[in-house]
Amino acid sequence: MATQVRPASEDQAEFLAQLIGEGLLLESGVPGVYGHGAAFEDARSRLDERLSAEAASRGAERLRFPPVLPRRQLESSGYLASFPHLAGTVYSFDGDERQAAAQSERAANHEDWGEFQEMTELTLMPAACYPVYPAIARRGPLPPGGVFVDAGGAWVFRHEPSHDPARRQIFHQHELVRIGEPEAVLQWRDEWAQRGLDLLLALGLDAALDNANDPFFGRRGRMLATNQRQDRLKLELLVPIAGPEPTALASFNHHRDHFGSTYGIELADGGVAHTACLGFGHERIVLALLRTHGLDPGAWPAAVREQLWR
Amino acid sequence: MATQVRPASEDQAEFLAQLIGEGLLLESGVPGVYGHGAAFEDARSRLDERLSAEAASRGAERLRFPPVLPRRQLESSGYLASFPHLAGTVYSFDGDERQAAAQSERAANHEDWGEFQEMTELTLMPAACYPVYPAIARRGPLPPGGVFVDAGGAWVFRHEPSHDPARRQIFHQHELVRIGEPEAVLQWRDEWAQRGLDLLLALGLDAALDNANDPFFGRRGRMLATNQRQDRLKLELLVPIAGPEPTALASFNHHRDHFGSTYGIELADGGVAHTACLGFGHERIVLALLRTHGLDPGAWPAAVREQLWR
Repeated sequence: MATQVRPASEDQAEFLAQLIGEGLLLESGVPGVYGHGAAFEDARSRLDERLSAEAASRGAERLRFPPVLPRRQLESSGYLASFPHLAGTVYSFDGDERQAAAQSERAANHEDWGEFQEMTELTLMPAACYPVYPAIARRGPLPPGGVFVDAGGAWVFRHEPSHDPARRQIFHQHELVRIGEPEAVLQWRDEWAQRGLDLLLALGLDAALDNANDPFFGRRGRMLATNQRQDRLKLELLVPIAGPEPTALASFNHHRDHFGSTYGIELADGGVAHTACLGFGHERIVLALLRTHGLDPGAWPAAVREQLWR
Repeated sequence: MATQVRPASEDQAEFLAQLIGEGLLLESGVPGVYGHGAAFEDARSRLDERLSAEAASRGAERLRFPPVLPRRQLESSGYLASFPHLAGTVYSFDGDERQAAAQSERAANHEDWGEFQEMTELTLMPAACYPVYPAIARRGPLPPGGVFVDAGGAWVFRHEPSHDPARRQIFHQHELVRIGEPEAVLQWRDEWAQRGLDLLLALGLDAALDNANDPFFGRRGRMLATNQRQDRLKLELLVPIAGPEPTALASFNHHRDHFGSTYGIELADGGVAHTACLGFGHERIVLALLRTHGLDPGAWPAAVREQLWR
């Protein structure tokens, strides 16, 4: 059974065709998976630097993680209960020469070669904050004031094939993570939501901050989504790109003690740490800039360029 | 059947413990998968910039690709015939609520949940040059002189779990790709092998250029390896890191018309293009620097630092 590919709206299809025509994006043959041309990547890497500079100037520690996560961690995290449809797992071959030959022959004919593949100890990275929690927990109790980590513009995976150029299966999510006392964490989350809004407005984008919920799976998920909204655990910065609805360019998430309990992260004076993370979607922000200011970043308004090409 | 994990030599185990103790690498719980601390990542990103600057000054076009490749492309490429043991495939869930609940429960107990996962249209990226060939082929016949692409410090995957810190399952391979006339491509490969050697020597590393072969699978692979060596299709820059044998920090590969034929890349005046690619292993180069000059990059010799912190 093949996962259904979400269609694009007329606006989205036209925008994607323009992006490919201008060499900003490169088609791979799979919906939601693209290469970046030089101009797209230049804007994206400037944004990456800008976000890391904002974090560094406020004391963030820079950590970086690969695009895979230990399977055991995904299993323990609860992710598969909430987002089973978005997770990706890594399989590989561990057979003999005869099996290798059969696998290779079937694959070359584009026939099913799944019987030769087995689950490994790895999954794709669902969100760049996941590896941060155990890394901090391993250090022992938090220092007074807690920690602030910049996990950078990391590749994350969501299995949701779509022809909307703003809905990728794999993209850079720039995540900042705060771990500490409950009040400090909540205040940090709210300050960064305002800072993110200010940045997007300074970039000339028609941004609005709104209450939101994660795309939880199934009926149980609808209840989780309702609770999340009621408790204002997720805020999003919404900007119209192409198509009828605005797109979330960044999200600001409060986890209370969920990850602190899961990974045993202790406050300096005892007690379970609270956590919050926020994620800026690099590609979506660049797409919003291209849609708003035109397909040639060199011709964007000077005030916008000054925000990134400093 | 779980893939066997290669043990580390005593030197390698000691070096890995030092890297983790100093916060340069962060353990994930899976051998060959690590996070990077700030000092490691600073050195790695300086190296990334230096390599891209060398390429840009010689006319390279900057393209960037995600850490996944369309499965169909892997199937057509011949990779599974040569390296079935190294490939990673991406699986996901496409079931209903009942299945999602069963999967989540089994996963939470660390039991087998593979029956709920199906092969997707994606695999992990085996080498960063793979997406370059179809992207260039799609443009039509090459311009006169061919093309030179900098695919950047891309994440690539090799399923070979090991406790040697220099043998990662996922790492940044900085790939440069040349596509054009046979003589021009071979000359470019050889010039870059010399340029790479000069760079590693300038970084104070005990580097040597040598003839090499890929880790082809099985008995057929031994024949392929012998042919590859005889025809000098693969050169490597070898540097001792930790342990008994020197490690390849970079490779310089000549494919003749293999990819040109596979993807139908035509020369400006007709005929099949030749291709070459070279890959610098970011993490291995940083490890060699740390092993050679000490675990504090701030205390490396000035002549070495000037090469990267310009």
